[in-house]
Amino acid sequence: MPDDFERMWADLAPVGRSTRSGGYFRQPFTAPEEELRAWFAEQCATRGLRVEHDDFGNVVGWWDLGSGPGVLTGSHLDSVLDGGAYDGPLGVVAALAAIDLMRSRAVVPARPVGVSVFREEEGSRFGLACLGSRLATGATTWETARALTDRDGVALGDVVAGGGPGLLDGVGTFVELHVEQGRDLVDRGAAVGVASGIWPHGRYRFEVTGQANHAGTTRMEDRVDPMLTYAFTALAANKQARLAGQRATFGRVAVEPNGTNAVPSKVTAWLDARCATESELDALVEAISAQATDRAGRDGTSLAITAESVSASVAFDPDLAARVAADHEGGSWPVIPTQAGHDAGILAAAGIPTAMLFVRNPTGVSHSPDEHAEVADCLVGVSALADTLERLAG
Amino acid sequence: MPDDFERMWADLAPVGRSTRSGGYFRQPFTAPEEELRAWFAEQCATRGLRVEHDDFGNVVGWWDLGSGPGVLTGSHLDSVLDGGAYDGPLGVVAALAAIDLMRSRAVVPARPVGVSVFREEEGSRFGLACLGSRLATGATTWETARALTDRDGVALGDVVAGGGPGLLDGVGTFVELHVEQGRDLVDRGAAVGVASGIWPHGRYRFEVTGQANHAGTTRMEDRVDPMLTYAFTALAANKQARLAGQRATFGRVAVEPNGTNAVPSKVTAWLDARCATESELDALVEAISAQATDRAGRDGTSLAITAESVSASVAFDPDLAARVAADHEGGSWPVIPTQAGHDAGILAAAGIPTAMLFVRNPTGVSHSPDEHAEVADCLVGVSALADTLERLAG
Repeated sequence: MPDDFERMWADLAPVGRSTRSGGYFRQPFTAPEEELRAWFAEQCATRGLRVEHDDFGNVVGWWDLGSGPGVLTGSHLDSVLDGGAYDGPLGVVAALAAIDLMRSRAVVPARPVGVSVFREEEGSRFGLACLGSRLATGATTWETARALTDRDGVALGDVVAGGGPGLLDGVGTFVELHVEQGRDLVDRGAAVGVASGIWPHGRYRFEVTGQANHAGTTRMEDRVDPMLTYAFTALAANKQARLAGQRATFGRVAVEPNGTNAVPSKVTAWLDARCATESELDALVEAISAQATDRAGRDGTSLAITAESVSASVAFDPDLAARVAADHEGGSWPVIPTQAGHDAGILAAAGIPTAMLFVRNPTGVSHSPDEHAEVADCLVGVSALADTLERLAG
Repeated sequence: MPDDFERMWADLAPVGRSTRSGGYFRQPFTAPEEELRAWFAEQCATRGLRVEHDDFGNVVGWWDLGSGPGVLTGSHLDSVLDGGAYDGPLGVVAALAAIDLMRSRAVVPARPVGVSVFREEEGSRFGLACLGSRLATGATTWETARALTDRDGVALGDVVAGGGPGLLDGVGTFVELHVEQGRDLVDRGAAVGVASGIWPHGRYRFEVTGQANHAGTTRMEDRVDPMLTYAFTALAANKQARLAGQRATFGRVAVEPNGTNAVPSKVTAWLDARCATESELDALVEAISAQATDRAGRDGTSLAITAESVSASVAFDPDLAARVAADHEGGSWPVIPTQAGHDAGILAAAGIPTAMLFVRNPTGVSHSPDEHAEVADCLVGVSALADTLERLAG
């Protein structure tokens, strides 16, 4: 089993990897992501799993032995821009390895067990995170999805037609294994943890419009410079979130015309905000917006703020979490919250009992080439996932 | 003559114009700029001007009647990204119209009169302003120029071979007419002004490196976020320049990986700084750099600052300026400084007696689709330029 895991991991290592940064570029409907999907189909075929897919390209490989509501496990294969190797693929490889482990343990599940790959989990191309699982559960309609555009202005509707039925009928439970994206498990000295819930979070577009002008001849006091409004807002957001133990990030910016010797006409920037509760999230975004609006007034710029996507908080099924966490070789796993969105959150919100397993990440770094997990911890994760599937499907 | 001016102006209006913004995209060695060059060659042919060009594509159309050191006038046809119609083209069209006016006045110049078009004045493609005139005067070597790259990584040496001789031998004087890029002439109630000199100015690249990380799960206090260092620096630069009546602008930014849910790994931004004297410029850049370095220390980021180009102050020949400014129909024109770099500054620094004429700009807006000059003021400029050429070549 360790051999299977490491062999699969080695298969994926070169796909979509930037030799410059060592990070991954696996955006949906691009060559690297299609290669990963072909690899997954091959792994399913090798194991005799029956493959189903929907019109968006979400895929499930079913181990069809049992009957009744199925137990689904899996994650995603797409990445953020210049992301790490583990976020997504670890859950898919661990799911396949868990089936191998169950078979080596001669487990005969009483229910079907499926391995899922949801597409565009990161929202790195069309801007809406968990798009595949949103379409699969109906949380987002095809009508909305088709109108989404990527950075080059290509509409999703021109990339994929879509509209057919989902593939979650007959799914009774979902379990997603994921690399941890913080250092909670490091602090607790645990290789694996179980999720209690996901913080509510959202993406908000701040469009600041000013007046393009010459960077040399225009007196500072005559300018209407949207860069100043943006810079102030980025600092204010950081301070606001830091004081309250929340999260606020401006990681994406577009400047027009983006010329060295021109005061910009427009700066567009995206705020990613996350809090423990929805009311705290509303208050955080309101506080940042108020400071941005105040500064825009002083700069003479105009500001438009649009909520591009807001995800409610998710509380995973506490009984299921307790059942997943308890009685493993070496004791029980801790139950911890996370600030990151996942397909598991979408399925839970759609009423499917759902659990998440996290594997320890030594530095806590994620969405970066530095993201990491030790093989030994990954194998503990595979074992914990196999135990869980056995309990749920046994 | 007014007809000629307006006809030429109408010829240029659609070339490289964005229908979305109304601004111009006329970067060197692109289709719109090549079209403008073809138009210029045609205008020279119509007027019987002998065309010379160098290997970079700087062009002069000579009216070869006289003998001895020539009098050169002209400007540039390339634009900043999303720039205005007047910055550059007004000086070329005015030069051609001034020759038409001299001919209608039956002026027979005793010296050759040339109309010049220098290429890549804005540095909007290869990042070095006045590149054409720098190559023509030897201020920049071909070896340096060939290594310059554009935003797509294309080297100048792969676009143009270059290396041949310049075309400024035999030039005794240079006069550039340009739209004013501030509101000095508006405040003075004058249609035309004459330049006393150009402020020293420079472009400085600020590269801030941090650590990419997940925007949700990474606690604010665990981040190494280069966006914060940049944002603080942009605000500090503005405040520093504003207090001292100087100029400091961050108008161009590049973020990596520029994803909504990732703390950036790197933010690169370009400072454009200008002051009345070189020691003030040094002090301004030093003050901004010190504040940026201090903030980088607090953010845990690393900061590298590179001076990409620094232009010394230019004092135009005061006797020539006085001669150009005096005794026009309706009086004399005011003599004023400018904060913008021009090919005229490069030629002056190369020892060629040089003057500049400015045409009033109602709002002072420049490097923007809103840049403007009234036709009546442009025609006063043409007349002032014809007077000047007659005095210098007569």
